[in-house]
Amino acid sequence: MTTIKEVAKLAGVSVATVSRALNNSGYVSEAARKKVEAAVEELNFYPNEVARSLYQKKSKLIGLLLPDIANPFFPLIAKGVEDGVNQRGYSLLLGNVEDDLEKEKDYLKIFLQNNIAGVISAVQGDAKEIKKMPFVTLDRVESDRDLAVHSDDYTGGMLAAEVIADRDPKEIVIMVGPKDVPSSAMRLAGNEKVLKERHLDYQLFQTQSYKFELAEQTAHQFFETFPQADSVIASNDVYAIALMKEATKRGQRIPEEFQIIGYDDMPFSRMMYPGLSTIAQPAYEMGYKGAELLCDILEKGFVENGRIQLPVTLKIRESVRKKDKDE
Amino acid sequence: MTTIKEVAKLAGVSVATVSRALNNSGYVSEAARKKVEAAVEELNFYPNEVARSLYQKKSKLIGLLLPDIANPFFPLIAKGVEDGVNQRGYSLLLGNVEDDLEKEKDYLKIFLQNNIAGVISAVQGDAKEIKKMPFVTLDRVESDRDLAVHSDDYTGGMLAAEVIADRDPKEIVIMVGPKDVPSSAMRLAGNEKVLKERHLDYQLFQTQSYKFELAEQTAHQFFETFPQADSVIASNDVYAIALMKEATKRGQRIPEEFQIIGYDDMPFSRMMYPGLSTIAQPAYEMGYKGAELLCDILEKGFVENGRIQLPVTLKIRESVRKKDKDE
Repeated sequence: MTTIKEVAKLAGVSVATVSRALNNSGYVSEAARKKVEAAVEELNFYPNEVARSLYQKKSKLIGLLLPDIANPFFPLIAKGVEDGVNQRGYSLLLGNVEDDLEKEKDYLKIFLQNNIAGVISAVQGDAKEIKKMPFVTLDRVESDRDLAVHSDDYTGGMLAAEVIADRDPKEIVIMVGPKDVPSSAMRLAGNEKVLKERHLDYQLFQTQSYKFELAEQTAHQFFETFPQADSVIASNDVYAIALMKEATKRGQRIPEEFQIIGYDDMPFSRMMYPGLSTIAQPAYEMGYKGAELLCDILEKGFVENGRIQLPVTLKIRESVRKKDKDE
Repeated sequence: MTTIKEVAKLAGVSVATVSRALNNSGYVSEAARKKVEAAVEELNFYPNEVARSLYQKKSKLIGLLLPDIANPFFPLIAKGVEDGVNQRGYSLLLGNVEDDLEKEKDYLKIFLQNNIAGVISAVQGDAKEIKKMPFVTLDRVESDRDLAVHSDDYTGGMLAAEVIADRDPKEIVIMVGPKDVPSSAMRLAGNEKVLKERHLDYQLFQTQSYKFELAEQTAHQFFETFPQADSVIASNDVYAIALMKEATKRGQRIPEEFQIIGYDDMPFSRMMYPGLSTIAQPAYEMGYKGAELLCDILEKGFVENGRIQLPVTLKIRESVRKKDKDE
C-alpha cells in the first residue's frame, strides 16, 4: 500500500504539506499542490479508510439489513439507500437477513466488528445489538423507533378497500400480512374501517410471511380455504400475482370472476398483463430518505424530524373491474 | 469500544492470556478460558476487524459489483455471493454500478480505501483498477479472465432457438443483447447455428441494454420495427415480459399468434400467467460458486480450476405453442 511518505518523497515536499493539501487545511502553494496531486495520481494513493476508521473509531461504512433481497421491493429500497449514502461519502455493507433473528444478530456483530457508523434496517427484528448503534428503520416500523421512514399504511389500507368496495364485490377476502410486521396491522385497520363503513362482509386469511418462496404455496392454500373468493385485498404484490395465476389455473377470468388489488407496486405489477392494481409505496425514496436521515444524525448529531411518513398512491390496472356507475 | 485490557481486568487474567484464549494459540487453562469467555460475553467484546485489517493490510470485506440491482436476476446472484462469503467469514460491500463506468471506478476506489480482500463482479466493465485486486467475474465473462463463473450461453442459445424452430414459426426475430456483453454474442451464435441448420429465416433486433427501465420502451420499438414478428427469441426475461404485454395490448393471442422464449428464468417468469418459457441460468449457484472461488484464492493462493461453466436448463411454459407433431 502506498504511504503518505512515498507521496511526499515523489512530490518533493514534506509530509505535512501533503497532509494539508489532501485535507484542504492550512496554506499550500499552488505549485506544491500540483506536485502533490501529480504524485497522488502517479502512486495511486488514496487516504486509507481503515487507518482513518481506527483513529476516528468509526468507519465510513453503513450496514444495511434487508428481510429478503429476492422480493423485488427490497432491491429498490437498497438502490435508494445506496444512492443516498454514496452521496454523503458512505458505503454499504449488505446484510440479507431472510427473516431469521440469528442471521440478523450475526450481521450486527459483523457490523460492529467493522466499526460501522450506523445501520439502516428494513427488518423489524428486535435484536438488542442494534440499539448500540445509530440506526434508522425503514418500512417495518415499530412505534417506539426514533428514526424511521415508512409509508402511510393506514391510508394505503383504506384506498385498497375502497377500490374493492366500489367494484361490486361478492365474497371479499383480506389476505393479512404477518402479525409481527407492524405495517400489516395498520393496513388491516385501514381495510376494515372502509368495509365496515360500507357494511360489506369480509373474511380474513392470515399469512405468516411475505417471503417470495412461499407465495405459490400460500396462493394454493388460499383457494383451498376460500374457493368462493371473488374480490381479494392481497398482502403484497408478489402474493397477489401468485393468487392471479392460481385463479387463472382454476378457470376464473380476471377481473370478471376474480378481482384483486396488491400492495407495493413492484415493477412487474405494471409490466405483466393483466396489470395488477395496487397501492404504490415509494420504495426508492424510502431508502434514499432513510440514508439522508442517518447521515444527518451522523454528521450533525440531530435531526428536526426523525420520523418521516411518505404518501402512497393508488394504481388502477386491469386486475379489478370497472367502477360501479352509481358510486 | 471495549478493549482487550478491560476483558483481561474483568476476567482477572493477563492481556496475553486473553489474547491466547481468543486466538486459540498457546496454552490457556480451562478455568482461565471460562473466565475470559464470560468477560467477553459480559462486555460484548468482539475482536476489532478494523484493527486487524490495518495490521494484516487486508480486511474481511469483499466488494460486490452488480450492473443493475433492479433486474431480479442480480439480487439472486447477490444472495448466492452473500451466502458464499458469509460461510467463509467475509462480508459484502455493495456496489450497484448501473452500467456506468464512472460509478464502477468510484466503487473500486472505495473498495481499495477499505482494504477489501477481493472483488466479485457481475459487471463486464473494464476499469483498470480492478486488476489490482483479486477478482472473480460472474455471468458477463470475457475470455481473458482467469477467475470466472458463467453459464453455458452457447448451449442456452441453441436450446432457445430449437424451441422456436420446433413450433411452426412464421416470422422469427432474435432480440440480441447488448454488443458489449460477451454472453450476448455467445447466445446469438447458438441461436444462429440452429436456425441456419434448420434453414429458417430470421431477423435481428439489436438492443443496447439489459436495463430494467428500458424494457417497455424497447418492446414498443420492437413492434414498430417488426409488426409481423410471430416468434421471438428475447434477450432476457424482463424484455420478454415487456414484449408479451405489448403483444397482448396489440390484440395478439399468446401463444397462438405470438410466441416467445426468454432467458434467465427469473422467479416472475414462473409466477405469471401465461408463464414465460425460458432458459434457466442458475443465478444463486453462480453467485455462490463465485464466492467460493474467490475465498479459495484468498486463503490458499491458488485454485485448480479457475473458470467454472454452469449448465443451463430449458423451461417450457405457456408462452410457446405445442411442439410440431412431425418433429
